[in-house]
Amino acid sequence: MNVAIFGATGYGGIQAVNLLKDNKNYKITYLGGNKLSGSKWNENFPYINLNSDQIIEKVSIDGIDDRANVALLCLPNGISSTLTRGLLEKGLKVIDLSADYRYKSLEQWKKVYSKEAIIYKRNDDDLCREAVYGLPEINKDEISKARLIACPGCFPTSALIPLIPFLSQGIIESEGIVIDSKTGTSGGGREPNHKLMFSECGEGLSAYGLINHRHTSEIEQIASSISGDDIQLLFTPHLIPMSRGIHSTIYGRLRDPGLTSSDCRIILDNYYRNHSNIKVLPVDTYPSTKWVRNTNEIHLSLKVDSRNGRIIILSVIDNLIKGQTGQAIQNLNLISGLPINNGLEMINHYP
Amino acid sequence: MNVAIFGATGYGGIQAVNLLKDNKNYKITYLGGNKLSGSKWNENFPYINLNSDQIIEKVSIDGIDDRANVALLCLPNGISSTLTRGLLEKGLKVIDLSADYRYKSLEQWKKVYSKEAIIYKRNDDDLCREAVYGLPEINKDEISKARLIACPGCFPTSALIPLIPFLSQGIIESEGIVIDSKTGTSGGGREPNHKLMFSECGEGLSAYGLINHRHTSEIEQIASSISGDDIQLLFTPHLIPMSRGIHSTIYGRLRDPGLTSSDCRIILDNYYRNHSNIKVLPVDTYPSTKWVRNTNEIHLSLKVDSRNGRIIILSVIDNLIKGQTGQAIQNLNLISGLPINNGLEMINHYP
Amino acid sequence: MNVAIFGATGYGGIQAVNLLKDNKNYKITYLGGNKLSGSKWNENFPYINLNSDQIIEKVSIDGIDDRANVALLCLPNGISSTLTRGLLEKGLKVIDLSADYRYKSLEQWKKVYSKEAIIYKRNDDDLCREAVYGLPEINKDEISKARLIACPGCFPTSALIPLIPFLSQGIIESEGIVIDSKTGTSGGGREPNHKLMFSECGEGLSAYGLINHRHTSEIEQIASSISGDDIQLLFTPHLIPMSRGIHSTIYGRLRDPGLTSSDCRIILDNYYRNHSNIKVLPVDTYPSTKWVRNTNEIHLSLKVDSRNGRIIILSVIDNLIKGQTGQAIQNLNLISGLPINNGLEMINHYP
Amino acid sequence: MNVAIFGATGYGGIQAVNLLKDNKNYKITYLGGNKLSGSKWNENFPYINLNSDQIIEKVSIDGIDDRANVALLCLPNGISSTLTRGLLEKGLKVIDLSADYRYKSLEQWKKVYSKEAIIYKRNDDDLCREAVYGLPEINKDEISKARLIACPGCFPTSALIPLIPFLSQGIIESEGIVIDSKTGTSGGGREPNHKLMFSECGEGLSAYGLINHRHTSEIEQIASSISGDDIQLLFTPHLIPMSRGIHSTIYGRLRDPGLTSSDCRIILDNYYRNHSNIKVLPVDTYPSTKWVRNTNEIHLSLKVDSRNGRIIILSVIDNLIKGQTGQAIQNLNLISGLPINNGLEMINHYP
Repeated sequence: MNVAIFGATGYGGIQAVNLLKDNKNYKITYLGGNKLSGSKWNENFPYINLNSDQIIEKVSIDGIDDRANVALLCLPNGISSTLTRGLLEKGLKVIDLSADYRYKSLEQWKKVYSKEAIIYKRNDDDLCREAVYGLPEINKDEISKARLIACPGCFPTSALIPLIPFLSQGIIESEGIVIDSKTGTSGGGREPNHKLMFSECGEGLSAYGLINHRHTSEIEQIASSISGDDIQLLFTPHLIPMSRGIHSTIYGRLRDPGLTSSDCRIILDNYYRNHSNIKVLPVDTYPSTKWVRNTNEIHLSLKVDSRNGRIIILSVIDNLIKGQTGQAIQNLNLISGLPINNGLEMINHYP
Repeated sequence: MNVAIFGATGYGGIQAVNLLKDNKNYKITYLGGNKLSGSKWNENFPYINLNSDQIIEKVSIDGIDDRANVALLCLPNGISSTLTRGLLEKGLKVIDLSADYRYKSLEQWKKVYSKEAIIYKRNDDDLCREAVYGLPEINKDEISKARLIACPGCFPTSALIPLIPFLSQGIIESEGIVIDSKTGTSGGGREPNHKLMFSECGEGLSAYGLINHRHTSEIEQIASSISGDDIQLLFTPHLIPMSRGIHSTIYGRLRDPGLTSSDCRIILDNYYRNHSNIKVLPVDTYPSTKWVRNTNEIHLSLKVDSRNGRIIILSVIDNLIKGQTGQAIQNLNLISGLPINNGLEMINHYP
Repeated sequence: MNVAIFGATGYGGIQAVNLLKDNKNYKITYLGGNKLSGSKWNENFPYINLNSDQIIEKVSIDGIDDRANVALLCLPNGISSTLTRGLLEKGLKVIDLSADYRYKSLEQWKKVYSKEAIIYKRNDDDLCREAVYGLPEINKDEISKARLIACPGCFPTSALIPLIPFLSQGIIESEGIVIDSKTGTSGGGREPNHKLMFSECGEGLSAYGLINHRHTSEIEQIASSISGDDIQLLFTPHLIPMSRGIHSTIYGRLRDPGLTSSDCRIILDNYYRNHSNIKVLPVDTYPSTKWVRNTNEIHLSLKVDSRNGRIIILSVIDNLIKGQTGQAIQNLNLISGLPINNGLEMINHYP
Repeated sequence: MNVAIFGATGYGGIQAVNLLKDNKNYKITYLGGNKLSGSKWNENFPYINLNSDQIIEKVSIDGIDDRANVALLCLPNGISSTLTRGLLEKGLKVIDLSADYRYKSLEQWKKVYSKEAIIYKRNDDDLCREAVYGLPEINKDEISKARLIACPGCFPTSALIPLIPFLSQGIIESEGIVIDSKTGTSGGGREPNHKLMFSECGEGLSAYGLINHRHTSEIEQIASSISGDDIQLLFTPHLIPMSRGIHSTIYGRLRDPGLTSSDCRIILDNYYRNHSNIKVLPVDTYPSTKWVRNTNEIHLSLKVDSRNGRIIILSVIDNLIKGQTGQAIQNLNLISGLPINNGLEMINHYP
């Protein structure tokens, strides 16, 4: 498979180059990035050596069908929508890492991503409906057959994987779910940003986006569809002084308050028993985000408050890998007919 | 007032020295610390200059009544209980920073602090009942008259100050409260500890003490007493790669779902309007722990999810000041007949 | 004294507000900052409360003589030079925190600050010659009488204070000096900057500005003037994942190789014995930048390699206080006839 | 090759497991670690999955010859010397990561490692003389034939690789070399240690071991042997608030002051042109430790001060990989007749 990477010079694109460059099943044939276009990759990224040392090019789909079978779009929200129809028409499959195709309804996208909707006048409802939500451990079959895949957001990935087994089986009540998430700074991207400067966000901690963070509606859409109920939940992200990693602490109420931690652990373990990248930890073992840093794994743990039938579930991922590009490559593997975790067997270097 | 500091060489004791050394109302007359006893203060702590450069002494109450009117106990759990009765009998007032007198019931202490209860065979139920819970903005009058004050834990401080106005007025339901707290590493103390080494806890994040962290029962005891209900809540602490600070994110349900963020902000602001160290931020301003670092302040913010009448309240404190020694000094001020925030007007050096 | 702060919203300006706001000897009468002009201080900086809650104004010297006696210029390089003559003509004294007046020769400034020299067409050689280099422990008398004070750079401060006693007495050879400095990220300012983002500079370390960092020539100018020799030295700054602090490790050769660590410590201690903010540590005690964080202190330590008569001197400062605004306020005190460290008795909150 | 890992549960041992577990050329047949002996690997290290999930055993060489061909000793200084002769007599090759065999002279070891020398009464001068210093890019042939390899310390690795090309060719003067090194906290090991706790070493920076750090003599021994001169240099380590990485800034004087940065870069590049893990960066590109984190690479850069013929050389390594276990595995490859970098092709996940 020949892969075109659009938006190669953001953190998502950098990970894509990193994860694909030594993979024999794929060849990177195009690196698109407007700011650095015309310069060579290795000169800009001396710490990620590309043997081919390709030139970074202007973002454009002209002639892309002669060079690639699939496009990875690692672009800011809104821009993907300007390229996707063209790419599909040229016969490429599209794996979009932005939020542009995560909602079944274009109207909802316009509401949630209202700032982008002002700039990008979209009328691709058909593509929104067609796009498959790229959570590969859940949606494997649909993804395998898809032309257009919308990769989940980092927070939704960290929240949905632990929640889905319980929601799909009605074990957790659909009302009153709280998701308290903590993210490293790379989730905010590579563009200069006052709030993400070390002096500002280092050595301290703050919450942001209370109630109406964009990922709330994304999580609710999928959780509702899985559970059959109209789920409204509380999701609060926090910015943590570390580069990578998301930790989500999820609070819910068990329908059957007699379930124990051990029971719930078995439910989770069984649900994902065929997924080597999802590890359900023993009860009373709580993961650090460092346990999955630089890997495509997700570690889960849980504990029940037997006094009142509440459950706390913990998940940790690397926000740039399982939360972004690693997951995109799982999707790429699926549409390429390869094993889901092909090329993603990274080891975690602790500490 | 002559102040004896027991446990002067832990983080609590160091803060006590720091906060009292230039305060004209107090004189530090005793520095107790077994490990460094016999050596001079400045030699051990060249970064905190004591003009008197006192000698650190063995922990002992012999003759302490000739030297001090009040004892600050900055000691590990359990040890305070071995000194307190003696100190009271010698006529000193006692401000205890440990958990030994935080529960009205000694039985509960023995259950929650079971490891310490094996070592320290306590039978001071009378002192447990007598001790006043030292949350000075709430308990001012009782504290002023007390002989024995049990200073709150750091997490309970960060959780109770935002919750009490709502619980005492029945605005938040007493069922289903979730407290998701994040702490810096200094909360774990100054003793060598594998989990608190930079290599282990730096550059990552993890939860600990799910369901049965000791502070859960402390928060529940006070919250229940304030609200009149038997409150059972979920409290989860997380260890954050920063030295100082606690951020608590508190989730609850409003009894009246029609209340807005603005309404709730006014309730909070009114409740604490006489407390200059408690700052209620504008709606949509979310504090960083850095905003209160090295101060005795607590910053609060909140937001209501108008879809379903949920409320999220944020609080930030410096865990070693408002969460520990600063609060102890507020209590010291009250029993000394001084203004509550005397000597605690520290500025925050941002960033 | 009425003080006008120009550039009040950068890190230098923020520190100035912080350090002056509760000082009875000074009154802040003007806060200049173009980006936030028209808005109130407290709204922008909820973590630094100004009781007066002044409005931030456009940067302008119109009518400033009716409002202030002295101007603190916390502005980017080049801009100060556009305001200084006007301010002096209006009778204000000027304390400039930028590099504009640090060189006796405007030509050298134009060479070193060549980018700024393209934008700002300066011809104020007279002011360059008039300006006094504001290292207050060294230049106290000159500063007291000056109209225009050029505050030293952060690195030069950390390097010159330890070097001057040895250079002025000819104890260290003027040839072969190496200054290896490490700085926190706030030294790079408050403006968004890719290299200073947490994701980029966190969890790692790099050098920058080898050989030709601008502070090399500033250090050389002063060191040469003190020693009487034409000193050429090596200075290398490194960016460290911490917000505040500079640590300089200085390597030199003793003229008399028989001098011991203890001898050299005495020389240093004697030189600064009247300066309470300069602390010379015992031999074999090595300071952390945390020991001086949020203070105007400088801690020094040294060790001699008796095999070959080399000396290593260590210094730590808070780059935003002794390295910037605290030092400016020492200068302000001197021109106001106040004790040099008036209002700068901050305590260090360890850890 | 069957590999026995002694000291498997320290940071060195953990890296060894990590780097060998999926390498088809090696099989880990023994995991020795007294503290955790009797328990399973995966239970202790849930973040490093061993498919075999071996039991951690007491440290002992009994029967080890039936299980392994080579021993990796990841043990504290002194202990290796108690096992090595026995291992060699049983026919194993020994790769020692401690300092026990780094000096040709046992007397020097006893002097430098005087504390350990009190505990461990060594008389294995013969082995000290026999041991080969395991800097594989320099000593490849000798290592390939060795029975006993002493792996270099982390700082010496970071200093010697950049210095050797210049010293061996007499390009840098052997007098006056300064090595200013900065290390992450994992260099201090996995045992609880007050100075390495986040609260102590986080958010700040300090030097340690001035003049007489143990690695000074190790660097001097090798540098002297390479240059033919008796080199006495200044080496100063600094503890940086990051988990992994060493950055060394090396200052020297060129014998020929006419050499340019570009000339010197070519010398370095030519010297290591056959070593894919050593990357010489373009002039004016300065590496971050993050560029080599989790890899066995070393990145080098340099700059000449043409005013006075001084040179500054920068090197970055991952202290636990190229500075420790990765280098040990290069040595393991050489004695196994495998390509030097076999199994060490890790990618760097930036940021």
